[in-house]
Amino acid sequence: MINTFSPLFTDFYELVMMQGFLKEGRKNQIAIFDLFYRSNPLGHGYAIFAGLAQVIEYLKNLKFEESDIRYLRSLNKFDEDFLEYLRDFKFSGTIHSVTEGSVVFPGEPLVKVTAPIMECQLIEGMLLNTINHQSLIATKASRIVQAAANDQVVEFGLRRAQSTGAAIYGARAAIIGGCSVTSNVQAGKMFGLQVAGTHSHSWVLSFPTELEAFRSFAKLNPGYCILLVDTYNTLQSGVPNAIKVFDELREQGLLTTYGIRLDSGDLAYLSKKARQLLDAAGHKQAVIAASNDLDENLIADLRQQGSKITLWGIGTHLITSSGQSSFGGVYKMAAIQDEKGQFIPKIKISESPEKINNPGDKNLIRLYDAASKKIKADLITLSHEKIDTNEDLTIFHPTQTWKKMTLKKGEFYIKDLLVKIVDNGQIVYKSPSAKEIRAYAITEKESLWDEFKRITKPHILPVDLSDELHKLKHDLIDHIYTTSQEMPTGCLQKMHSEQSE
Amino acid sequence: MINTFSPLFTDFYELVMMQGFLKEGRKNQIAIFDLFYRSNPLGHGYAIFAGLAQVIEYLKNLKFEESDIRYLRSLNKFDEDFLEYLRDFKFSGTIHSVTEGSVVFPGEPLVKVTAPIMECQLIEGMLLNTINHQSLIATKASRIVQAAANDQVVEFGLRRAQSTGAAIYGARAAIIGGCSVTSNVQAGKMFGLQVAGTHSHSWVLSFPTELEAFRSFAKLNPGYCILLVDTYNTLQSGVPNAIKVFDELREQGLLTTYGIRLDSGDLAYLSKKARQLLDAAGHKQAVIAASNDLDENLIADLRQQGSKITLWGIGTHLITSSGQSSFGGVYKMAAIQDEKGQFIPKIKISESPEKINNPGDKNLIRLYDAASKKIKADLITLSHEKIDTNEDLTIFHPTQTWKKMTLKKGEFYIKDLLVKIVDNGQIVYKSPSAKEIRAYAITEKESLWDEFKRITKPHILPVDLSDELHKLKHDLIDHIYTTSQEMPTGCLQKMHSEQSE
Repeated sequence: MINTFSPLFTDFYELVMMQGFLKEGRKNQIAIFDLFYRSNPLGHGYAIFAGLAQVIEYLKNLKFEESDIRYLRSLNKFDEDFLEYLRDFKFSGTIHSVTEGSVVFPGEPLVKVTAPIMECQLIEGMLLNTINHQSLIATKASRIVQAAANDQVVEFGLRRAQSTGAAIYGARAAIIGGCSVTSNVQAGKMFGLQVAGTHSHSWVLSFPTELEAFRSFAKLNPGYCILLVDTYNTLQSGVPNAIKVFDELREQGLLTTYGIRLDSGDLAYLSKKARQLLDAAGHKQAVIAASNDLDENLIADLRQQGSKITLWGIGTHLITSSGQSSFGGVYKMAAIQDEKGQFIPKIKISESPEKINNPGDKNLIRLYDAASKKIKADLITLSHEKIDTNEDLTIFHPTQTWKKMTLKKGEFYIKDLLVKIVDNGQIVYKSPSAKEIRAYAITEKESLWDEFKRITKPHILPVDLSDELHKLKHDLIDHIYTTSQEMPTGCLQKMHSEQSE
Repeated sequence: MINTFSPLFTDFYELVMMQGFLKEGRKNQIAIFDLFYRSNPLGHGYAIFAGLAQVIEYLKNLKFEESDIRYLRSLNKFDEDFLEYLRDFKFSGTIHSVTEGSVVFPGEPLVKVTAPIMECQLIEGMLLNTINHQSLIATKASRIVQAAANDQVVEFGLRRAQSTGAAIYGARAAIIGGCSVTSNVQAGKMFGLQVAGTHSHSWVLSFPTELEAFRSFAKLNPGYCILLVDTYNTLQSGVPNAIKVFDELREQGLLTTYGIRLDSGDLAYLSKKARQLLDAAGHKQAVIAASNDLDENLIADLRQQGSKITLWGIGTHLITSSGQSSFGGVYKMAAIQDEKGQFIPKIKISESPEKINNPGDKNLIRLYDAASKKIKADLITLSHEKIDTNEDLTIFHPTQTWKKMTLKKGEFYIKDLLVKIVDNGQIVYKSPSAKEIRAYAITEKESLWDEFKRITKPHILPVDLSDELHKLKHDLIDHIYTTSQEMPTGCLQKMHSEQSE
């Protein structure tokens, strides 16, 4: 057993820096850090934000145990003042966050931490790990569910996940992203998720014949009887044997939810042939489920080819987000107090222009079209700015600034996306259940035009900066450039063509 | 906090099948299951087996809590007899396994579970999850370390791992695979791994100038002073400021381990320029470390281009095994007792020929060349077979059976790879430390010719079947084919050209 909410779940350099800040007498210096990501996973049109409930749990339980202190002492890198500070450690800052299940876009401040810099540093690792992981899986699930149209998608990946934690929290995120059921019993217990499953090949192999195996299973589980038909031969043996057993159940009046599962071979061909056999035997209501290395692209292709599968079991590709195994969220300092308590906006310049962050204490606002209730654009502002919906609002593309859009008063409404989660160390937000978050994510996706939801080459929603933020950012870049002559021209050119994602 | 060793960490269908076996009166029927994998991750020439210590921990702690029983009861799928059985559940079987750090190949039985079938089913999920995860990351680490030749490789991926568990156990596996250090403090504490790290961009941004940030860091950490030089501009600002600070440390006689870290831009170019600047200032011993989306291919390319990096920090691509996010290990029934207590070998036939397993109670033997101590081949036998090293031994390719090799007596020696881990429910094996396993993996890799260690298109080591096992497998396939006429000819042809991987 491990403590998944340990304060030692952090990169070593955070502790080195924390000790440095303490020694520098900067224990109470407040900083603002933003968590954001730089591009949508897998070329998707949006991401689904997830993982906040576990961050809150972590913050609530954050405490160095005596064994942690002893361990750190044994490394001979930390002095007793610092260890004493850790012994009393408690998160005292304020956190604003987008809520779980929200549709989000690259470059947006999804979590804003305002806290003593030492505390900002300690929590970086857990915050990023958890939001990165669950947002990745929720987004992958959302792609898969979209490819499956209205079919049911079941999360099956426990045995292929990258650790037990990846399976458990991944199952939660998969449900948030739109899966309806998981095979993971522990996740079911922890998060109140619907669990299901019937039998594997070993059930069939453990009987002298396939027919005996099916008959026994049906007798024991008449209410939910999905038979795995590919242990020997799907069409010559599995499906005919399943039909015999379904006939017997029907005779006994015991048919409820039933059907077959395909787990190998060509799923389009086999599902069509199996459908014919089932229908011919009067089992039109028998479900055809499939598994075997499925992902969103294969599902879309199989559907395109007229496969008769209506229940998709997804393992490896969902639970590990194959094709892109990391969300890529980062956590950057946006501002820090000076000696007078004023916040100084901060920007990180780099040879890699996509690594330049948005400076300052910011807010994130969503603009909706009043008639359709669809999202028009997202807008990042400085937090003191107010948007007046009784005035027309002109927004512009963050890099291609000639691209402007004017929203007429009365024709749009706005929503603040950042919600206060922690207020000076006190948790002030109660996480909804995974089921509630799933329902919320569905309404969120309804606020997107279909063009943003294509799984291949979707339209990109503009995430704009307010005039004031845009000016601040570019003044800071210019200031660093002119005062230090530090940046080669090529880099600056690249920077100016930087894209918001 | 979660119980990562909960018996509920299982797929729902395992519990459904377990209840079925209990109701069928088959509680004590013994089965044999093998864990194996079908192809090496990322086209690598071998895999590094890892994760066994956590499986042992799990087996040791496997116990249904009252809250687990209550949860299962609430699902209305399980009756009281079965819940009563679970209340007393304890693993009573025998497990043989390859040891951690071993070099292994596709198709080999890596873990063999001989136990009542109900117990075999329950532990499937955890066994696969843990071995799949850690073997994947250890193998990826081994690739990266090979690409980095003799340079140090540091595991940095905590914030990008797929859950906290993936970060913690992934760090362990990365060390087993050959990394020397991790940034993950909790993994360091749990497994006695070496931890390290210095500072991030936020340290630099929190000071009025980069020079002040570096000076403060060096003052506080003179013994291990790796300065991150790309916050503003690597060559115009970062490296010159670092050199100033190194000069100051030298004047004070405080220079020990020091250097710079590059985290953006073109790492080949920047490292060569930085090396020139450092050398010109008399800092030939300053290390150049690099991070930023590195993987084995980029490392090989950068080294090929003469980069001056000698310390590699690897995050995302290592901890998530980008390029292949799953190991693909499976767990299949190989035999089951009949009513007389005889083991009946079992085989799963399928439309997908690579899904056909090796039947029976098996052993795994490694054949070494006596002169070079290099591996000649691996051989899967039935467990009652004995290899006599006082006789010549002829082995043949499992599918291209005309390919034969004769090992002359006296010129080869053998090693049994499967070790007894659990004996009738008693743990009889003590896991070495991660550090010891790392050392063992290094000797294992030394037993491979270089041709098997190339990261691109390596030579493939033959994994052969004994005469007797080969005959058993093909007799079973023929038997199923002739008795049921269940298999279409195309499938049989594909099966006969099946490759051992």
